Amino acid sequence: MGKRRQLRLGAMLHGVGSSTSLWRHPDIQADASTNFKLYREWTRKAEEGRFDLVFVADGLYINEKSIPHFLDRFEPLTILSALAAASGRIGLVGTLSTSYSEPFTVARQFGSLDKISGGRAGWNIVTSPLEGSALNFGPKRHPEHDERYRIAKEHLDVVRGLWDSWEDDAFPRDKERGVYFDRSRLHELNHEGEFFSVKGPLNVSRSPQGHPVLFQAGASEVGRDYAASEADAIFAGHETLEEAAAFYADVKKRAAAFGRNPDDLLVFPGIGPIVGATEEEAERKYREAAALVSAEDALLYLGRFFEHHDFSQYELDAPFPELGELGQNSFRSTTDRIKAAAREQGLTLRQAALQAATPRPSFIGTPEQVADRMQAWFEAGAADGFMIGSSVPRALEDFIDHVVPILQARGLFRHEYEADTLRGNLGLPVPENRHAAARRARQADAPAPSGA
Amino acid sequence: MGKRRQLRLGAMLHGVGSSTSLWRHPDIQADASTNFKLYREWTRKAEEGRFDLVFVADGLYINEKSIPHFLDRFEPLTILSALAAASGRIGLVGTLSTSYSEPFTVARQFGSLDKISGGRAGWNIVTSPLEGSALNFGPKRHPEHDERYRIAKEHLDVVRGLWDSWEDDAFPRDKERGVYFDRSRLHELNHEGEFFSVKGPLNVSRSPQGHPVLFQAGASEVGRDYAASEADAIFAGHETLEEAAAFYADVKKRAAAFGRNPDDLLVFPGIGPIVGATEEEAERKYREAAALVSAEDALLYLGRFFEHHDFSQYELDAPFPELGELGQNSFRSTTDRIKAAAREQGLTLRQAALQAATPRPSFIGTPEQVADRMQAWFEAGAADGFMIGSSVPRALEDFIDHVVPILQARGLFRHEYEADTLRGNLGLPVPENRHAAARRARQADAPAPSGA
Repeated sequence: MGKRRQLRLGAMLHGVGSSTSLWRHPDIQADASTNFKLYREWTRKAEEGRFDLVFVADGLYINEKSIPHFLDRFEPLTILSALAAASGRIGLVGTLSTSYSEPFTVARQFGSLDKISGGRAGWNIVTSPLEGSALNFGPKRHPEHDERYRIAKEHLDVVRGLWDSWEDDAFPRDKERGVYFDRSRLHELNHEGEFFSVKGPLNVSRSPQGHPVLFQAGASEVGRDYAASEADAIFAGHETLEEAAAFYADVKKRAAAFGRNPDDLLVFPGIGPIVGATEEEAERKYREAAALVSAEDALLYLGRFFEHHDFSQYELDAPFPELGELGQNSFRSTTDRIKAAAREQGLTLRQAALQAATPRPSFIGTPEQVADRMQAWFEAGAADGFMIGSSVPRALEDFIDHVVPILQARGLFRHEYEADTLRGNLGLPVPENRHAAARRARQADAPAPSGA
Repeated sequence: MGKRRQLRLGAMLHGVGSSTSLWRHPDIQADASTNFKLYREWTRKAEEGRFDLVFVADGLYINEKSIPHFLDRFEPLTILSALAAASGRIGLVGTLSTSYSEPFTVARQFGSLDKISGGRAGWNIVTSPLEGSALNFGPKRHPEHDERYRIAKEHLDVVRGLWDSWEDDAFPRDKERGVYFDRSRLHELNHEGEFFSVKGPLNVSRSPQGHPVLFQAGASEVGRDYAASEADAIFAGHETLEEAAAFYADVKKRAAAFGRNPDDLLVFPGIGPIVGATEEEAERKYREAAALVSAEDALLYLGRFFEHHDFSQYELDAPFPELGELGQNSFRSTTDRIKAAAREQGLTLRQAALQAATPRPSFIGTPEQVADRMQAWFEAGAADGFMIGSSVPRALEDFIDHVVPILQARGLFRHEYEADTLRGNLGLPVPENRHAAARRARQADAPAPSGA
C-alpha cells in the first residue's frame, strides 16, 4: 500500500482582513496591511505549521469605497521577495494580472523570485475583473470578459516561452575553456501574436522549478477551461461540500479532456476557519467579528462585487433590488450567488448585504470539528487542500496550533517538508524545457547510426 | 563651526562583474550573478562599512553577444526587496526604465519597497538606451532619444503624483470612531497626458521617505537637464578629475537654474578601486584581471555600446574604423569618448577594444593612495560621493576593510548611520506632499478669522 494521499495547506496573508470592519476588532493590529514584521511573523508561523504556501492577493484599482485592506497594502512581488529572504521552505504565491502587465516583466520578476527563494515562487494568474483598473493603465480600455481570457492565454504562452529561453544545462561556466554559456542551449522566442510581440531570450536562466507554480481562480466557463488547461492549481470559493465537490469534479474532468493527468491540477477551496476551545467560544468569536459590521459598511462591501454600484440609493429594508446585468463583467460567480440567495431566501437589502459581508463560515467549532469537516471535504473529493483565510483575530495561529496537529495525527498532513521547492511539496511535476523535449524527440525519431 | 561635509558611498552589486571576462578569475564565484547568498553577503558587508546604499543596475534586452552578467541576473525590484529583509539601514537602489513600464506599477513597487524597508528605497530612472528592448515589449517601437526623455518626464510626473495620493496623516485608523482613513487626505490624480492617462489614487500609502530617492545617469544635454531638474542624485562616469569636476559644476549649475538648491542634487562618480598592500600588489591585481580578456571578448564588449555592431568584420590591427553616426542613439557619451580616444591616440581596433574592455582604473594603489585620490576629487568639487564597482575579486571587501577606516579617520565618512532612511543618510530633504503644501499655502493666504 502506498503512502496515504496528503492534503495541502496555504495561508492567505491579507493584513487587516478581507472584510470591511475586522480592523476595528481590539485584537487586530490596525496597520497590519503594510506591516512587514507582521507579514514575516505570519509567514514564519505558517512555515512552522509546515504549510505549502503563503498567498498575497492583489488589485489594481481603488476608490473611497474600497475595503480598508485594499486601500493601502503591499504589492505582491515586492512583499513576496522580502518574505523569501525571511523564510526557508514555504511557497510564495502572488497575484498578477495579465491584462495590465508586460509578459517580459512578469517572466523576469517571477523567474527572479523563484531563484531568490530557491524554487518557491507561484503566480496566481488573474485577468482583472474591475473596469476601474483600465483607468490606472491608460490610454488602454478595459477588455471584455472573454477577450481578457484570450489575452491571458497569449500572455501566459509568452511567459512560459520566455521561461524556456535557457535550457537547464545552459550555463556550464567553464573557466578553463572560457565557456560561460552553451549557445546551443539558448533559444529566442520570436513570438508574434494577436496582443504581444516578444523576441526574447529572457535575461534570467531557467528557474529551480522549471516554471513557477501557476494558480488560477476563474469560476466562469471560460475561466474553468483556462484553469483546467493551463494551471497547476485552482483557488476555489464554495460554501458547501456539494458545491465544492461539483466544482472539483468539473475542473478535474476538464483537465482530463485537455489530455492532462487530473492529479496535476490541485483544487484549493478558500476557508475562514474559526476555532474555539468549545463550540460556544468559536461562535462567540464569529459574533464579535460580525457585530463590527454596520449596514453602511455592508452596502459598500456588496457594491464592490457589483462594479462599485451605489446600494445606498435603495430602501434598506425593502426586498433586494433587481439589478439586471449588473455584476456580469466582474466577479460573476459571486454576484450570481448573491442574487440567487436573495431571491431564494426572500432577503431584504439589509439582510443580503450583512449576509454577504459577514458570512457564517462553514468551518467553525472545536479543532476536532474543523478537522473533521476538512477531512470530509478532502475525502469526498471536494478539495486537494485548503487556503486558510482569517475572519477573526489570530485565526491562522489558532488553526496552526490546534487543527494542524490533529490533521498530522490522522496522517492527512505532513510533519516535515518533503522537498525544497513548492512544486516538490505540492507533488507537481517539473515542466520539461520545450527545446530539450524537442531535441529528445528528434533524437528518438532519428535512425540509429549505422553500425549501432 | 558646523560639522564637516561628509562624502557618500554606494556599492554596485553586479554578480560576476560588468566586464566580459572577470568571471574566469579563480577567485570569482562563477554563479555570482544569480546567487542570492552572495548578494546578501555583499549588502551586509556594505552595511557594516556604513555605506549609504547598494545599487542594482538593469537591462531589458540580451543576445548571444551580451556580457556574462547580463545574460542571467536578478530583476532589481525582487532582489532589492529580498535584500530589504536581510539588512537594516542601508539604502536599496535599482534601475527601472520609463520606456517599458507602467507608472502605476512603478509607483506601487517602489512605494511597497520603501514601506518594506522602512524608507530605504531608491529608483535609478533610465530611458533604455538599447533599441532591442522594444523587441521584448512589442508591439511597441523604440522611441528616439529625445522622445524617451519626454516619456520619462511625464512618467515621473505620474509616479510622483501617485506617491502623493495619500497625505502623511491620511490613516488615523481610529477603532473607536470607525475611521480607517480620512477622506479629505485622499487625492485622485486624474492625469491625462501625451503618453499616459492615470486616474489614481495609488493603493499604497505615502512612503516613509515621502518619495523614494530618485537617481539618474543621463550624460547627454537632455539627460543632464532631466537629472538637474528631477533627480536627487546622479550616477556619473568620468576618467579624470578634470572631466568629473566639469560635469559636477555643469549639473549643479543646471540645478540652480531650475530653482533648486544645488546641494540637494548629489553627484556620484562610479569608480572601480583596486587596493593592494603595496602599489605593486594593486598593479598585479589589475594585470591579472586584464589578462583574462581576449581580443574577441573585447570586440564583443565594444559592440555593446554601438548597438551590438559586429566589430569582427574589421582588421584587428588596422586603425579604428570610421563609424559615422553609429552609437548616437544609445550610450552616446561613452561612444563619443571611445571614438575620440581612438582618433587622438591613433589606436588600432585591437588597442581601442582592449582599452575599452580593460580600462586601467584611476583609483588604484595602496589604501592611502586610493583615499587620497577620493579626497582630492571630493574636495575639488568633482564628487559628493562615489559608487564603488568591482573590477577585481574582493574589491568591495578590500575597499571596506582598508579604505573606509582611513576616510573615517580623516573625518570624511561616517562611523555610524545618522538616520533610518536613505534620504536621511544622504542629507536630502523629504518632499512635502503636494496637497498638504497646497492647503498650507491656501491657509496662509486666507484672511485671519475675525477676532483672531
